Amino acid sequence: MSDPLVIFTPSGKRGHFPVGTPVLTAARQLGVDLDSVCGGRGICSKCQVSPSYGEFSKHGVTVADDALSEWNEVEARYDRVRGLKEGRRLGCQATIQSDIVIDVPAESQVHRQVVRKAASDRVIVMDPATKLYYVTVPEPDMHEPLGDFERLRAALRTQWEIEEVTAPLSILSKLQKALRKGEWAVTVAVHRGHDDSAARIMEIWPGFHEDRIFGLAIDLGSTTIAAHLTDLRNGTVAASAGVMNPQIRFGEDLMSRVSYAMMNPGGDLEMTRAVREAIDGLTVELAQEAGISPAQILEAVFVCNPVMHHLLLGIDPVELGQAPFALATSRSVSVDATELGLHGMNDRARVFVLPCIAGHVGADAAAVALSEQPGKSDDLVLVVDVGTNAEILLGDRSRVLACSSPTGPAFEGAQISSGQRAAPGAIEKIEIDPTSKEPRFRVIGCDLWSDDPGFDAATAASGITGICGSGIIEAVAELRIAGLMDARGLLGSAEQTGTPRMVAEGRTHSYLIHDGTADGGPRITVTQGDIRAIQLAKSALYAGARLLMDERGVDKVDRVVLAGAFGAHISPKHAMVLGMIPDAPLDKVTSAGNAAGTGARIALCSVAARAEIEQTVREITKVETAIEPRFQEHFVNANAIPHATDPFPELLSHTPLPDVSFNAGSSGGSDAAGGRRRRRRA
Amino acid sequence: MSDPLVIFTPSGKRGHFPVGTPVLTAARQLGVDLDSVCGGRGICSKCQVSPSYGEFSKHGVTVADDALSEWNEVEARYDRVRGLKEGRRLGCQATIQSDIVIDVPAESQVHRQVVRKAASDRVIVMDPATKLYYVTVPEPDMHEPLGDFERLRAALRTQWEIEEVTAPLSILSKLQKALRKGEWAVTVAVHRGHDDSAARIMEIWPGFHEDRIFGLAIDLGSTTIAAHLTDLRNGTVAASAGVMNPQIRFGEDLMSRVSYAMMNPGGDLEMTRAVREAIDGLTVELAQEAGISPAQILEAVFVCNPVMHHLLLGIDPVELGQAPFALATSRSVSVDATELGLHGMNDRARVFVLPCIAGHVGADAAAVALSEQPGKSDDLVLVVDVGTNAEILLGDRSRVLACSSPTGPAFEGAQISSGQRAAPGAIEKIEIDPTSKEPRFRVIGCDLWSDDPGFDAATAASGITGICGSGIIEAVAELRIAGLMDARGLLGSAEQTGTPRMVAEGRTHSYLIHDGTADGGPRITVTQGDIRAIQLAKSALYAGARLLMDERGVDKVDRVVLAGAFGAHISPKHAMVLGMIPDAPLDKVTSAGNAAGTGARIALCSVAARAEIEQTVREITKVETAIEPRFQEHFVNANAIPHATDPFPELLSHTPLPDVSFNAGSSGGSDAAGGRRRRRRA
Repeated sequence: MSDPLVIFTPSGKRGHFPVGTPVLTAARQLGVDLDSVCGGRGICSKCQVSPSYGEFSKHGVTVADDALSEWNEVEARYDRVRGLKEGRRLGCQATIQSDIVIDVPAESQVHRQVVRKAASDRVIVMDPATKLYYVTVPEPDMHEPLGDFERLRAALRTQWEIEEVTAPLSILSKLQKALRKGEWAVTVAVHRGHDDSAARIMEIWPGFHEDRIFGLAIDLGSTTIAAHLTDLRNGTVAASAGVMNPQIRFGEDLMSRVSYAMMNPGGDLEMTRAVREAIDGLTVELAQEAGISPAQILEAVFVCNPVMHHLLLGIDPVELGQAPFALATSRSVSVDATELGLHGMNDRARVFVLPCIAGHVGADAAAVALSEQPGKSDDLVLVVDVGTNAEILLGDRSRVLACSSPTGPAFEGAQISSGQRAAPGAIEKIEIDPTSKEPRFRVIGCDLWSDDPGFDAATAASGITGICGSGIIEAVAELRIAGLMDARGLLGSAEQTGTPRMVAEGRTHSYLIHDGTADGGPRITVTQGDIRAIQLAKSALYAGARLLMDERGVDKVDRVVLAGAFGAHISPKHAMVLGMIPDAPLDKVTSAGNAAGTGARIALCSVAARAEIEQTVREITKVETAIEPRFQEHFVNANAIPHATDPFPELLSHTPLPDVSFNAGSSGGSDAAGGRRRRRRA
Repeated sequence: MSDPLVIFTPSGKRGHFPVGTPVLTAARQLGVDLDSVCGGRGICSKCQVSPSYGEFSKHGVTVADDALSEWNEVEARYDRVRGLKEGRRLGCQATIQSDIVIDVPAESQVHRQVVRKAASDRVIVMDPATKLYYVTVPEPDMHEPLGDFERLRAALRTQWEIEEVTAPLSILSKLQKALRKGEWAVTVAVHRGHDDSAARIMEIWPGFHEDRIFGLAIDLGSTTIAAHLTDLRNGTVAASAGVMNPQIRFGEDLMSRVSYAMMNPGGDLEMTRAVREAIDGLTVELAQEAGISPAQILEAVFVCNPVMHHLLLGIDPVELGQAPFALATSRSVSVDATELGLHGMNDRARVFVLPCIAGHVGADAAAVALSEQPGKSDDLVLVVDVGTNAEILLGDRSRVLACSSPTGPAFEGAQISSGQRAAPGAIEKIEIDPTSKEPRFRVIGCDLWSDDPGFDAATAASGITGICGSGIIEAVAELRIAGLMDARGLLGSAEQTGTPRMVAEGRTHSYLIHDGTADGGPRITVTQGDIRAIQLAKSALYAGARLLMDERGVDKVDRVVLAGAFGAHISPKHAMVLGMIPDAPLDKVTSAGNAAGTGARIALCSVAARAEIEQTVREITKVETAIEPRFQEHFVNANAIPHATDPFPELLSHTPLPDVSFNAGSSGGSDAAGGRRRRRRA
């Protein structure tokens, strides 16, 4: 009679093992994904399995009730103390007696796969730089007087195949007490970066340590800092929070911060201190929210644009303000949190900053590349991360290009007359009836449209306070669709358009969306100045994308991904009417949410991803918008808002763009024939 | 006609090279030791050579006057600005025209050999962990936007074959300014430890940097801290200084400091702070004395016993106070000076602490092993480093054994009634006339004997203040030789010995060496208590050595090396009369001076030595005196001071040890037949 057959599900891996073989041993020999932190000592319970009994015609086996050994003392104790789920066994304790089918539940799989978000099937294989290991260490021997640390090292090598581990002095000073308190067993958190040759011990606890360990994924933007406190065992987000970047007081946009550093000796250090303090505060807040100790946070991953990157690292960004825009360092940066002056987390926490692509294309763009993987796309994809700067990636398996375009803050509702940040009360969606020219809209925090019954009551609390970035884009596009604005971006007068919503303001006109003055609220309008600001922003964005397309030698892309916290809320239809993005079938324009933040989380959860992006970034073709004459050309040509002859039949069939033309006061004259058609020449 | 023949002296290396080959290039191709910091750019002048002209029958060549190219502009400028020694050429500029003999002067050799001290022919090949490199870096290119640091890295790889260099953030933040100020050339100090996989940039200067860089070799003793500020280019000592270890206030000896840490929570940290502050002070003092900036000190190497080792590193030494005497770490330790809380040197300075051999045998013993190299000795050598603890090494090429023995502070003049530290005014040498029983002596700071004319005048300034460690050893041995003390160590009375210098003190007697009371000075005597203290110390030392000899299976050694600041001053003859050290021919007992400090300097000047000692230490057989029953046995048996039948005929022929025996008051009875003869049994 041959050895019993063991079949693991869901992997389907199978093999014969001698009677008495522990399930964990069989799993390891077959390469089945079965977790174990304590190394099979019945302590960690990570190797739980669910045996199945009865007949399995599919597998051709019948499993007897006694196919596994009886519960032993270790399992009984574990069940008594902590409780073992119905039907579960500890894989390190239960041994094989006869043919058996064993299921490995998802939470017992080492490489737990974490779905990035419901809308996507992108998964991250958990393989963080910092992991916990339970290890038993031989007692000291006077006749072979190796240090406690050297015996721990040797134990990590034999028990966990971790070679050449190092430890900072602050661990060495805790080591001896921990070993003795744990009776020659400790749990250590070991960090192995993607390029560090030496693993290092980050933390040590006596005996088996139950507590979770965490990392921070931080998207350090010019305007906001967003952080996700992430469980390093399974990648789940325990808490998220954001805070304004306090550097705003030194300058709204990046170039004004660079100027501040140039004009004020020590100004770069002021900004560095400010952002580090904000990160410390955010860290403490997140730890409190999740109910954990800051000492449990052992890692942080940062993504940011090059100026923020330098300011975070304490490097004067002055070189980034002038050609040739030389980065101090373009590779990823791995340092101690304390070297960054960060003190909100574990004293020994490590920081990983993604690599920058170029002087204007930062680690945030690298994070988008890591998240959206244009280099693994079969079709040609354009990824646009919309913010104060737009990061633009274009590519497929053959090649990826990247650039950055200075769109300015208009897309985020700044420098817009009725603009505001995305918050309850802000208009985020708008439609203008092409016939009546009347608007209907929705505000953040309410699902009703403004002409739905109950809208006033539902928005009474927040009021209608302004218009946010996605709202202004829709408003401008709708004005064009409704024939209230010509292809050059000029708004018509009440006379020209036949609607009293067009209000004269000096020599130009505004469109009145909502007048709340009767109730003490604001008058919300779109002014000619607002339209100019949006035109500049969208021209910059479009020009950047076109530049990459030129470089690639194409005049269309297969699909477009809109990324960025704001990008997620842009209506693809309106973005295309505006001419923000190049032509693509509407169903091929998708939103990726905060792709940079997702990239940070991916790098936090996977050292392989860190190695990948380090490599990927070097292979990306960098295009520098600031010195490329064709960028200016594209920018000027992109200023117009295309009219009805543009190729959006499927999109715009119900609302052909009218070929109107307005004169703004005495200036003007029609050059509506320009616009998108002219851009085609490039 | 074949290419010109080039012969380098003193190496004798020779080869043929095409006309026009620079001398430096020829030297490199032949593997001739010719320095260059600037990489052949005519900046550093390190590659100076002395061409020889005329007939060289020995080499079979005749060198024409125009065998090298004419002075070029670079050499002319160099000579104008800095001056070039008569007959010297710059090896990177002068090119070969015909057969030539070229001498490489010592200062142009890369691996300058530094003679350790005049009395020894041991040399150190200079190969320090930290060296300077001049490097030119390509300017940034917008189309290939590698960071400034990445281009510097690449340049170090191609120009200096330094792979994978890293830099802390504090260097990255200085990098961009330095590169631009140096017009794309910088000098960097790069550190490569013996086990670090990655080289790291320690300092950066624009252009070619002239200043020297330094390291500290620090012998951190229980009682004193001695440091040598060492030039890292050539190993010369620029300044030396010592300071008392401020931990003395927590306990004179190591075990009382360990007790202090055990009894007082946080006491270990108090002691750590104290010693670090003292090191900082010493560092600043040395920099001032040498007239350099503390920022020029880029490295420090420490040697110390295990308790000092732990206290320096901030590790509670409590485990070292009890069996099994477990070290927190036994390997060498490489850390940033700032991690040690040291701030007297460059912010990025690195610290290397030699490995410990065992819980009682420290990095100081490892340093002695590195300096004295017992493992490379053809004959069996016993190395004794005498201090508050004695480090003892015994070995030859086949095997080395080590132990530590708690001799206590008596050898250093502490716990001796008239004892004092070695300082001007202390009696350091003494002779007692066997007939008259009268003493004559010398004091530190004066070359005259006390019975020489002019002695009183010469010592008037210092006075005669006490007796130091080497003095008390000689005094006790001389008392035995003069028949004033019996083999058990009992001093006779005035009656028994016939000299009024024997003074009764209670039931025991003292020997009066010098009575300065008439001039307000002290009475300097050797008391029975002093003799007991010395007996205990010498028994411990001897027992440790015997234990190693037992382990090795020998009852004599070929030679003895006395090391330690104090060991250098011990008279071999008196040490052997006392029975401090095992029998050896007197001419085979030598002094090695401060061997531990020398070991520190060797490790500072050579990474190969670091690797060597790391390996050597693991191969040494450790013997733990504290738990070895035979140690007690040897200790008890070693208490006596041998008499005339002992085998020192060549040494003692002029003064046979008298076979006297005294009774101390009512106690006593003669057991003088014990002593050395009994020890022989072991």
